Amino acid sequence: MSGAAAAAPVRRLAVIGCGLMGGSFARALRARGLLQQAVGVARSAEARARAVALGVVDEATDDPAAAARGADVVLLAVPVAATEATLRALAPALADDALLMDVGSTKADVVAAARAALDAARLARFVPAHPIAGKEKAGVEHACAELYRGAQVIVTPLPETAADAQRRAQALWEAVGARVRTMTPQAHDAALAAVSHLPHLLAFAAVHALAQQPDGARFLELAGPGFRDFTRIAASDPDVWRDILHANAAEVRAQAAAFRAALDAFEAALAEPARLRLLIDEASRVRRAWAPAGAPPSP
Amino acid sequence: MSGAAAAAPVRRLAVIGCGLMGGSFARALRARGLLQQAVGVARSAEARARAVALGVVDEATDDPAAAARGADVVLLAVPVAATEATLRALAPALADDALLMDVGSTKADVVAAARAALDAARLARFVPAHPIAGKEKAGVEHACAELYRGAQVIVTPLPETAADAQRRAQALWEAVGARVRTMTPQAHDAALAAVSHLPHLLAFAAVHALAQQPDGARFLELAGPGFRDFTRIAASDPDVWRDILHANAAEVRAQAAAFRAALDAFEAALAEPARLRLLIDEASRVRRAWAPAGAPPSP
Repeated sequence: MSGAAAAAPVRRLAVIGCGLMGGSFARALRARGLLQQAVGVARSAEARARAVALGVVDEATDDPAAAARGADVVLLAVPVAATEATLRALAPALADDALLMDVGSTKADVVAAARAALDAARLARFVPAHPIAGKEKAGVEHACAELYRGAQVIVTPLPETAADAQRRAQALWEAVGARVRTMTPQAHDAALAAVSHLPHLLAFAAVHALAQQPDGARFLELAGPGFRDFTRIAASDPDVWRDILHANAAEVRAQAAAFRAALDAFEAALAEPARLRLLIDEASRVRRAWAPAGAPPSP
Repeated sequence: MSGAAAAAPVRRLAVIGCGLMGGSFARALRARGLLQQAVGVARSAEARARAVALGVVDEATDDPAAAARGADVVLLAVPVAATEATLRALAPALADDALLMDVGSTKADVVAAARAALDAARLARFVPAHPIAGKEKAGVEHACAELYRGAQVIVTPLPETAADAQRRAQALWEAVGARVRTMTPQAHDAALAAVSHLPHLLAFAAVHALAQQPDGARFLELAGPGFRDFTRIAASDPDVWRDILHANAAEVRAQAAAFRAALDAFEAALAEPARLRLLIDEASRVRRAWAPAGAPPSP
């Protein structure tokens, strides 16, 4: 929390896409006394009413430009494929010195969208960010002031990004308890394909394969805690994950190829216990040695 | 806990393989006042000393026959490929009326091993069981009196199994908080290949594929809570899982084929957002609708 002292309060925060990620950012700033006013953008009247009723934001609208007007910090938290259109809609209302951030799980496509939608002055205030946090439960009702505590946030600044914008972004993420890492959008997308996007694809495919079987429903009745955890991410939001997997398809395909080669080796070893034990042992050792960097212990 | 009242106390419990599963059974009975004496079998002197020091068992030995002698309940909790040799070793010491159970994650191979190792009288007292519970952490130090609470236990009795042995087994599993289901070994193995064995194989392969990459270690530093849960089962015990996957290889291969077909469909859809959303949505709905039957809420 060393960053908490460094972050100046946000006067008006616009949360464009007021769901789990954006709502949690608003709650986290407010809980730390760093938020004066928050406005949320959501498409459905019901989501807007909920965000206000829950106290996540002070007001809500369906118009990104109206929300961005007068905001000193704008957080974009929409499915990544909606980035360009959303930025185009809000850019005319964006103050020249407002800090603009996103929380998208892919970065190369988001950066390209920002380049297409923003003028040079506003592009210099954009600090792309990906907080490695979340739940399989979407929606503002799950927003939580501690979602980012202990999480890593990867920022992928552009060559054009202003140094003070980057410092402000880092201070805010640190204020809500996150650790900030900087890398290129390409390095981010390659790494996340491996540790997040492919696992989601595999979990979706595993549940799909099970559900398609004639006995699938009966089998599911026997699933236990291992299945519960292995497939938790398969419950994730379809719009969000369609966009992530589509945007990062090339890296995801490369990771899928590596996975298929490993699966081939494991399947071939099903008939060879000594070889099978060796492969399992290698995986088991890696997994036992791993601990989520900076993340809180398992809930 | 309706079964608790029905279960008569165990006079002497022999836990053959005194690790997480066997140790938890002993602890669970003891915590419910249903255990007078427990003896554990472990190969290593260190494991034996630990099991006694932790109060999981009253005494420990490396000799299955010595443990089984005088026991009214014998619980076999060794990797499944060790079943036949272990049963041969303890059978001569087994009282004619002792209840014999196992906790193996495969059942057809365990039943075949029992048929090969036991005479007719003792085979009639064998009630094969698979508690769908556990952790990725092996070892008696993780044994816990509540491991089986809310879990399902599948029993796969033989045609020769005596009705009173089956009733006694069911009463004991219910006494420790489990719900008992009865099915054939073949139906068990087909279902568990789908909901447990294939997920383990996929998790092992996913971690292996990641670890094999030049950038694997760097990528792992960015892994978050989704990866943590998806790969938790990849930390499982190599001896236990070598045996399970090898014993149930045919069913595992069939499930792997179904999974590969689903993965093909998802990969093909990476370039087609509408199709990709449909597939994700189908998986996400199935997973959100699923709840572990009778299991406690997520820890």
